[in-house]
Amino acid sequence: MDSRIREHAATVVDHSTGIEAGDNVVISAPSAAEDFVVALYERCAEKEAHPITLYSDSRATRGFLTNHTTTFDTPEHLLALYEEMDVYIAVRGDRNATETADIDPDTNAEYRRAMQPVLQERLSKTWCLTQYPTSGNAQLAGMSTDAYQEFVWNAVRLDWEAQRSHQAEMVERLNAANEVRITSGEETELKLSIEGNVAINDYGEKNLPGGEVFTAPVKTSVSGTVHFDMPLYRQGREIRDVRLEFENGRITAYSAERNEAVLDGIFATDDGAMYLGELGIGMNRAIDTFSYNMLFDEKMGDTVHLAVGSAYPETVGERNEVNESAEHVDMIIDMSEDSEIRLDDEVIQRNGTFQFEDGFAHAQD
Amino acid sequence: MDSRIREHAATVVDHSTGIEAGDNVVISAPSAAEDFVVALYERCAEKEAHPITLYSDSRATRGFLTNHTTTFDTPEHLLALYEEMDVYIAVRGDRNATETADIDPDTNAEYRRAMQPVLQERLSKTWCLTQYPTSGNAQLAGMSTDAYQEFVWNAVRLDWEAQRSHQAEMVERLNAANEVRITSGEETELKLSIEGNVAINDYGEKNLPGGEVFTAPVKTSVSGTVHFDMPLYRQGREIRDVRLEFENGRITAYSAERNEAVLDGIFATDDGAMYLGELGIGMNRAIDTFSYNMLFDEKMGDTVHLAVGSAYPETVGERNEVNESAEHVDMIIDMSEDSEIRLDDEVIQRNGTFQFEDGFAHAQD
Repeated sequence: MDSRIREHAATVVDHSTGIEAGDNVVISAPSAAEDFVVALYERCAEKEAHPITLYSDSRATRGFLTNHTTTFDTPEHLLALYEEMDVYIAVRGDRNATETADIDPDTNAEYRRAMQPVLQERLSKTWCLTQYPTSGNAQLAGMSTDAYQEFVWNAVRLDWEAQRSHQAEMVERLNAANEVRITSGEETELKLSIEGNVAINDYGEKNLPGGEVFTAPVKTSVSGTVHFDMPLYRQGREIRDVRLEFENGRITAYSAERNEAVLDGIFATDDGAMYLGELGIGMNRAIDTFSYNMLFDEKMGDTVHLAVGSAYPETVGERNEVNESAEHVDMIIDMSEDSEIRLDDEVIQRNGTFQFEDGFAHAQD
Repeated sequence: MDSRIREHAATVVDHSTGIEAGDNVVISAPSAAEDFVVALYERCAEKEAHPITLYSDSRATRGFLTNHTTTFDTPEHLLALYEEMDVYIAVRGDRNATETADIDPDTNAEYRRAMQPVLQERLSKTWCLTQYPTSGNAQLAGMSTDAYQEFVWNAVRLDWEAQRSHQAEMVERLNAANEVRITSGEETELKLSIEGNVAINDYGEKNLPGGEVFTAPVKTSVSGTVHFDMPLYRQGREIRDVRLEFENGRITAYSAERNEAVLDGIFATDDGAMYLGELGIGMNRAIDTFSYNMLFDEKMGDTVHLAVGSAYPETVGERNEVNESAEHVDMIIDMSEDSEIRLDDEVIQRNGTFQFEDGFAHAQD
């Protein structure tokens, strides 16, 4: 086994989730990630934890969803498992990244609704989402498998303590601010409140790789328009140039250049899918290549992402409403050119550079 | 996907387990059986059941057991899952049938003891054990992968109703009998009582392929000696020529020609491992090749098998004790030559032929 697989597993177990003796661990992984599952079991054994693994292959999900003809129920046995679980490790890794491309979006939306209690239970525990470098994901990124392995394993082996310090600046400023304005190019002009909400420093815990600072918009505060100029992959389909319009937090109009039907399915899932659940600011300079994989793309240093759907409860202050939804779909804005993030009218990022990185001395004229 | 995989899945779902709408299903499968898992999900979807899959790869188990240094606890999350489960489908299929060959037998025995409550919960539900034809199991059987696929898929597609009728004769006779005597070659001379216990007709339900009639010996009734002249594979190791001696049901001496240490581990697991839990009579003439796989070998028409360890509760009458153990290890006697099974002194099988097949007209002289 490549020694980097065991290093990756050690980072997940020791740093991301802090697994301890007696912890009931559930790993969710596709069959392509077999080596990584073995490495996780080895590390869990050293920690005296109890790992079991749920098979998450998208071929099986497709087989289930395309042959299902009636309504979906919440699977009670899965819920019972998660109730007794302490730590959840989700491993992504597709042999074929377009495996779910022919699932009906409405069916998928209905399935996600039925799975909502399961998702909520899972998110209430310690969890980590990470990536195993498969040939399918390499192909999606347009890389050789070897180069993609290098890309993934380098990204997860960052100096997370240094990254934490770097991001702490941003956490402090977001926590002190009330209003966020994002402008980019000719189409994006968005205003939202984060008053009373909490900014989280993601340095490789819930996401590995990490490298962002995120919070929740106050649910009904969002207004304006946004053009997501970075593509996203969802349900095995590429969605390009998503445009959203907001009034009082709710989406009033949307479009996409490609696979708009996937958006129809997402927004039909529940009312919470029509609101934003997350504002994230990518701060990981080690991820310098767009790879059509949200776990990596949203962390890139020159990007901002917004998620429609569920908010992370820990980002929502006591007096604000937690947006609930069975969806959580991140979408990315490229901030490297003609772009600004303002906090209470102070520019905190301009064209991808943070104010605390260079003070914008040159930009004040 | 080979159409025989979907036929196999349909047999498991429709015939073996009778899965119905709303059933909470747990599949346990190795990553090598990915195609079969997909086919099971398709069929479960048609039945409106809820399948999830636990990854059972022996590499992961080995990684866990070889890195574990302290005592084992029962994993409560797995127990909670099984408590809410209606149907359990266990799929075997090794890429490498000797994957667990370097696990310490004592560690394995201790692990099995900790897993005992989980096993009991699982056995209390509707369950089926079946085989996916992998390259590793083909190699163990000394066959090409293609020939082994043919072997497995032919065995599971038997006319199970015809098999049920054929076996019903044997069930009737066992249920009417009190004493069983098994003699074979020069070393096997075993006497046991089945008084009050129940014979079960296995026609592809709990085991697929099925093809045996089995019951439980009265726990303390077994006496005599037995030489298992067919090899068995356990923990990735071949055990040859097991010899056991019994007094009042308990094993008083044992030996094996090869890998006797595995037996030491089995018998050290708990006291129940020192008693027989099952007497099984193979009746499946379609399985005509020994393949080093108990699921198939014990069903062969010319064999008898005995299991040390746990008895199936449904085979034990109300007034008799159910032998409990974390072990259940089947061992086979070749009955094709110089052998007899007697029920209350009547010969029911001689040299592999059943009395109700030909009446032994020629054998009474």
